[in-house]
Amino acid sequence: MRIAVLGAGAWGTTIARVLAQNAASHDDMFYGTVDLYVEPIASDVNLAKTINSAHENPRYLPGIPLPDNVHASSDLLSVVSRAAILVFVCPHQFLGTLLDRIAAHVRRDAIAISLIKGLHAHDARMRTMSGMIRDALRIDCSALSGANVADQVAREQFSEATIGCRNVAHAAVFQAMFQRPYFRVQATTDIDGLEACGALKNIVALAAGFVDGLDLGTNTKAAVVRIGMEETMRLARVLFGDHVCDRTMLLSCGVADMITTCFSGRNRRVAEQFVRTGTPFDRLEAEMLHGQKLQGTLSAAEVHDVIVARGLTARFPLFAQTYRICFQGAPPRSIVDVLVQQPHEVVVAHHPDAA
Amino acid sequence: MRIAVLGAGAWGTTIARVLAQNAASHDDMFYGTVDLYVEPIASDVNLAKTINSAHENPRYLPGIPLPDNVHASSDLLSVVSRAAILVFVCPHQFLGTLLDRIAAHVRRDAIAISLIKGLHAHDARMRTMSGMIRDALRIDCSALSGANVADQVAREQFSEATIGCRNVAHAAVFQAMFQRPYFRVQATTDIDGLEACGALKNIVALAAGFVDGLDLGTNTKAAVVRIGMEETMRLARVLFGDHVCDRTMLLSCGVADMITTCFSGRNRRVAEQFVRTGTPFDRLEAEMLHGQKLQGTLSAAEVHDVIVARGLTARFPLFAQTYRICFQGAPPRSIVDVLVQQPHEVVVAHHPDAA
Repeated sequence: MRIAVLGAGAWGTTIARVLAQNAASHDDMFYGTVDLYVEPIASDVNLAKTINSAHENPRYLPGIPLPDNVHASSDLLSVVSRAAILVFVCPHQFLGTLLDRIAAHVRRDAIAISLIKGLHAHDARMRTMSGMIRDALRIDCSALSGANVADQVAREQFSEATIGCRNVAHAAVFQAMFQRPYFRVQATTDIDGLEACGALKNIVALAAGFVDGLDLGTNTKAAVVRIGMEETMRLARVLFGDHVCDRTMLLSCGVADMITTCFSGRNRRVAEQFVRTGTPFDRLEAEMLHGQKLQGTLSAAEVHDVIVARGLTARFPLFAQTYRICFQGAPPRSIVDVLVQQPHEVVVAHHPDAA
Repeated sequence: MRIAVLGAGAWGTTIARVLAQNAASHDDMFYGTVDLYVEPIASDVNLAKTINSAHENPRYLPGIPLPDNVHASSDLLSVVSRAAILVFVCPHQFLGTLLDRIAAHVRRDAIAISLIKGLHAHDARMRTMSGMIRDALRIDCSALSGANVADQVAREQFSEATIGCRNVAHAAVFQAMFQRPYFRVQATTDIDGLEACGALKNIVALAAGFVDGLDLGTNTKAAVVRIGMEETMRLARVLFGDHVCDRTMLLSCGVADMITTCFSGRNRRVAEQFVRTGTPFDRLEAEMLHGQKLQGTLSAAEVHDVIVARGLTARFPLFAQTYRICFQGAPPRSIVDVLVQQPHEVVVAHHPDAA
């Protein structure tokens, strides 16, 4: 099977490296070369050529040698038309356009996997990336997510990921594709829960950043992160149905990614500065992120629209208040005050002795 | 109902403060005064008197005013004999002796709750603190655990806790006793899972400290913490049975306490120094903890005995290797190397479309 990676940013390039190592060691299963689609950018139209000659992506993953069997190309349609497995790793706002461009050229028997973190908001609904791919291309699509800072995986520091996949045969293929001694992959069938975790964690990280900016203690930060996880799973069930499984939060795509994001991600960092300096988010983005956009504030606004449209703000006090603090001038301190309003449930484990 | 708090350390005193506030506001339910048993110590035989006159515990919780209706006493048997609700907050190594002293004096209709974090190792078994209390006193005993650094709760910074309770009527009593606007309490029936989380997190924190000492990245630390959670729930099921519920890990007693302990607790801190300096743990304890003992190393040794006796080390690579690093000279780096050996499970959520 021939693998094509669509997207040559830091994560796409890192994953092409992982896949090329596995293509070489599983030559019974995979075609020997992994194609890496490089979107031509005005400032460097020959990035694909550079990657193929230098065996390195100097723009997005400098200093990391790539195996010889990574083949970069900017010819999207020829890359797509020969691929048996499509790996989507583009920024999530570009997915729709990309799908339009390739839809007529995808093999009918191809399968896909999305490594994009995000949800697409539309009216009072939110769609998963894998769902968009599935609908646009009419092929099966899985998803991979986890606590995966790209350059650490590229340097082969141990990390884990989770594959969400509804088809057991495909899960086996994806495990063989992605698993390395330094990159451990588990599978779950709860693909919707997996993608919700990857998208909503950034809102929780903003709330965690507020707590840091207020110099509140570890009890409060742990509570905010935990309640954020609870709202994440609750919202995933509202959006996608009751098959979303709490157990997903205990996988790498859940708690591990949440921990990394809430302790060292950029959303947390900018939110802390927001509290300490009172500077609005758009100015902080410009000053701290060199033109990159914060995922968390965007997601907070999209989620807010959805829960307001459905009359559900009371069930999501952390998400709703994070939005009000970001965009409506609510005091950062209020992030803690609303937590007592969290819906209460007595959790009943199935205990034989329970009275 | 008259409440007695057995143990006047920082956490016992903090909890007496919470309970006294609630005894005053729920005077239909609770006796107006909360008894606080103070173990007389040679260096300060009159600590109880000092607490009652100064309304402060200058030894263990200096600077925090206590309500007037906290009544300290060193007369154990009179405190115990009039209590309808016994709250255990002593160091876990003293529980056995305490139970022997009070067993004949406890009211037959009393109920109890344990706030002690720890498990008691005995042969190839481990017992919960609430189980020991239940067996010794022949009364019902619940447990409370969470991400609760004492002085932050005493300063009324928002935090959460979980009550493990098999009796729904008792759960309502305990929720009324403990819940404050700054202290949010959820209940679960999975008391065994709750107590396992509180005891085993300290082993995970040692492993997290090794990762910090090795300057590995956030991916690896998040993976170690997550795998530690998985081994915690797996061991809880081995020790106590299949009724132990993964959902418990998503409560304050689980993930929140785990996060706090693995990012800012003393076990993490000492383990990091162990890697950086190569100093043995007993010397680090003496130098860094002023005579206090590390819970993590003790628990690692106890757990190691149990899993060796049961032939289960392969199912607990993180716990087993943490012990070998602490006590058998294994290199700290090996904590990462064993993680690829983690037992693999494809997690199957109940998805209607699953193929």
